[in-house]
Amino acid sequence: MAEPASTLAAGSAGTVETRYLDLPVPVRLDCGRELHPVRVAYETYGTLSPGRDNVILVCHALSGDAHAAGFAKTPPVESTRDGFAAEDRDGVTGKGLGWWDGMIGPGKAFDTDRFFVVSTNLLGGCRGTTGPSSIDPATGQPYGADFPVITVADMVRTERTFLDALGIERLAAVAGGSLGGMQAFEWAILFPDHVDAVVAIASTHALQPQGVAWNAIAREAILRDPAWQGGRYYGTGRTPGAGMGVARMVGHVTYLSALALDDKFSRRLQFADDIRHTITEPEFEVESYLRHQADSFVRRFDANTYLYMSRALTYFDLARQYGKGSLARALDGVSARTLLIAFSSDWLYPPSASGEIADALRALGKPVEFRVIEAPYGHDCFLLEEARQTPIIRQFLAEGPGGRMSLADGGAGGADGMTSRKRPS
Amino acid sequence: MAEPASTLAAGSAGTVETRYLDLPVPVRLDCGRELHPVRVAYETYGTLSPGRDNVILVCHALSGDAHAAGFAKTPPVESTRDGFAAEDRDGVTGKGLGWWDGMIGPGKAFDTDRFFVVSTNLLGGCRGTTGPSSIDPATGQPYGADFPVITVADMVRTERTFLDALGIERLAAVAGGSLGGMQAFEWAILFPDHVDAVVAIASTHALQPQGVAWNAIAREAILRDPAWQGGRYYGTGRTPGAGMGVARMVGHVTYLSALALDDKFSRRLQFADDIRHTITEPEFEVESYLRHQADSFVRRFDANTYLYMSRALTYFDLARQYGKGSLARALDGVSARTLLIAFSSDWLYPPSASGEIADALRALGKPVEFRVIEAPYGHDCFLLEEARQTPIIRQFLAEGPGGRMSLADGGAGGADGMTSRKRPS
Repeated sequence: MAEPASTLAAGSAGTVETRYLDLPVPVRLDCGRELHPVRVAYETYGTLSPGRDNVILVCHALSGDAHAAGFAKTPPVESTRDGFAAEDRDGVTGKGLGWWDGMIGPGKAFDTDRFFVVSTNLLGGCRGTTGPSSIDPATGQPYGADFPVITVADMVRTERTFLDALGIERLAAVAGGSLGGMQAFEWAILFPDHVDAVVAIASTHALQPQGVAWNAIAREAILRDPAWQGGRYYGTGRTPGAGMGVARMVGHVTYLSALALDDKFSRRLQFADDIRHTITEPEFEVESYLRHQADSFVRRFDANTYLYMSRALTYFDLARQYGKGSLARALDGVSARTLLIAFSSDWLYPPSASGEIADALRALGKPVEFRVIEAPYGHDCFLLEEARQTPIIRQFLAEGPGGRMSLADGGAGGADGMTSRKRPS
Repeated sequence: MAEPASTLAAGSAGTVETRYLDLPVPVRLDCGRELHPVRVAYETYGTLSPGRDNVILVCHALSGDAHAAGFAKTPPVESTRDGFAAEDRDGVTGKGLGWWDGMIGPGKAFDTDRFFVVSTNLLGGCRGTTGPSSIDPATGQPYGADFPVITVADMVRTERTFLDALGIERLAAVAGGSLGGMQAFEWAILFPDHVDAVVAIASTHALQPQGVAWNAIAREAILRDPAWQGGRYYGTGRTPGAGMGVARMVGHVTYLSALALDDKFSRRLQFADDIRHTITEPEFEVESYLRHQADSFVRRFDANTYLYMSRALTYFDLARQYGKGSLARALDGVSARTLLIAFSSDWLYPPSASGEIADALRALGKPVEFRVIEAPYGHDCFLLEEARQTPIIRQFLAEGPGGRMSLADGGAGGADGMTSRKRPS
């Protein structure tokens, strides 16, 4: 790690405010429907270069939002920063710090001294972008379960339309973890001429069947909650918090490794040294922790959005969508350089899945870097292991046109040829 | 594997009928309460020797019952045979075959030509033994959540009292998988002079924190179902089937390996070649399978029993209960020979946990055999890998007094000294 120490003590993206943009045209969806109007919530960090060629789009995961970095001007009740990290370090929750604040800012992995970083809340979201809790213009009521069932490609087409409206055509990189990484791949396939680099972390080309099962269980927990009311719970005074709490618990455990839970909680009991003989109250610290995670999630997230996001990420399957079953065929049109980072203990998005992508890209003669970070905390590592991801990402971006431009003259350089040069012929 | 082929083509325990016995004395519980009356549902296979020294008690897991082997004279609507195996092979479900039929019978692992095998429904159960759905004599109503919160030790004390009533003092072996294996350890610690051998399969001395978490989530799914009604749902016409279905799905996925799900379902879709864009209906075969598993479980099992069993198995912790934190100290009084079998792909009850028991017993100079079977299907292997467990168990039992007696003269031999002889000095 030749990265200077300053990387780890890098600065903040500052105080930021989420903005909103109403797309001027409808979004065409995979299901055949068109969605209009669509509002997109977004934040930006850094400065757009005169050549508009230093843009990095960061894409959030299942439960994220547009607030990826910096301090929220108006902090939400609970931060959307996910999981383990959130409550463990620095008391981040509730202080309005972005979910990837450790990765985005001056001198950080996505360096806002060099790049103009854009983050949007995904289509189907509940944090400002149009989703199932938005008003359906046809009825004047919230969409609920009448919201069209969307795909990752639909999310990406929405991002494309949004960036068009901002006057941004090319992306120096698309980056994200988990569902965010899926979007990065979709970008590289759907818009190969607009994406210079993909940074996909703890992601996959298709969730493995066990992951499909976990997501199905989480959705069942919501669907079976009578308060879900067929998705029409808005304004009824009842929300499917019970079911969504269970969904969150399932998700949470899949984001962690067995070792992480052991390290953090072991089998410690809540009360002194012995059991209380109760089936309704937490006895073990890990039980109490899960309840707390569930409760805080329920306060900040919409159950229908959970259903739609979960469905989209289980549908995602590059080989099925673009390759008639072949991953290599699906990736054949990709022209972006690709960086894949996986974590050794991530059993939900295992390194083997990233390895399959790397193999396919290599076989196609495309430039790809695949790094497995040995880290014990499971899928959540993509939110935790910032210090170890940072030098890898900085180096990868420095090799691209945007980075080189920045390092060299701060100008609008960076011909596509430099990317091409890196490709095996 | 020197076992003759005949082992694998061994016979059936025949047609059996579950019987019931009302215990003549109350059962004292860890929580301080006494339970009375207690009825125990049980089955037996084979013939009790004149010396009453050929008894093997088999103990079921979370969702089992007394019907461990043979054909039920009155087949239940659904077999209690768990999991993967049940619907995959021979259409066992619905035909009334016992949950461990592949292991118990003439010539099988627990050979009813040699042994008198006894199986009971556990205390807290819903298949004939007193549990939360039984009538509380104090109120004339079902106990519901007023049933005392029980432990594995309470189950074992109930089994002890039950065997006393049958006139059986010693056990040639106590055997079980998962929660059943926990009972076997409890037996060896609580009644060291009454147990010659322990056969604990896919079990542990204490569930790891991830397992505690999964069990907590499953219970939360039930507790949060409004139809649970504080546990007083009996007779209301509403049962917490929605929540218990989710609980079952969670359990089911933890019983399988990722590879098992991949082998069986891959990412195959329900309908032809493409997605249907639905959040409420199954799209993937694995989703449909989980719903089916949930539905069939809900029809045959009581939600309160699920809560109590799940709680008991998360409490179970030999080091906490008997060793002031030390597993070795907890096992110090054990005099039984021990056979531990674990499965390489079992991530819920990983081989490492069995290994810790083996290490502790060895350090204490006690006779222990620890076998890890390389098998890909996860925790459910204990119900599936009968052919590979059989020779190991037969050999282990043949080395004990019961087996030797049988092989030698069919008489009442088998002094304790033969067990002791096997112990390292």
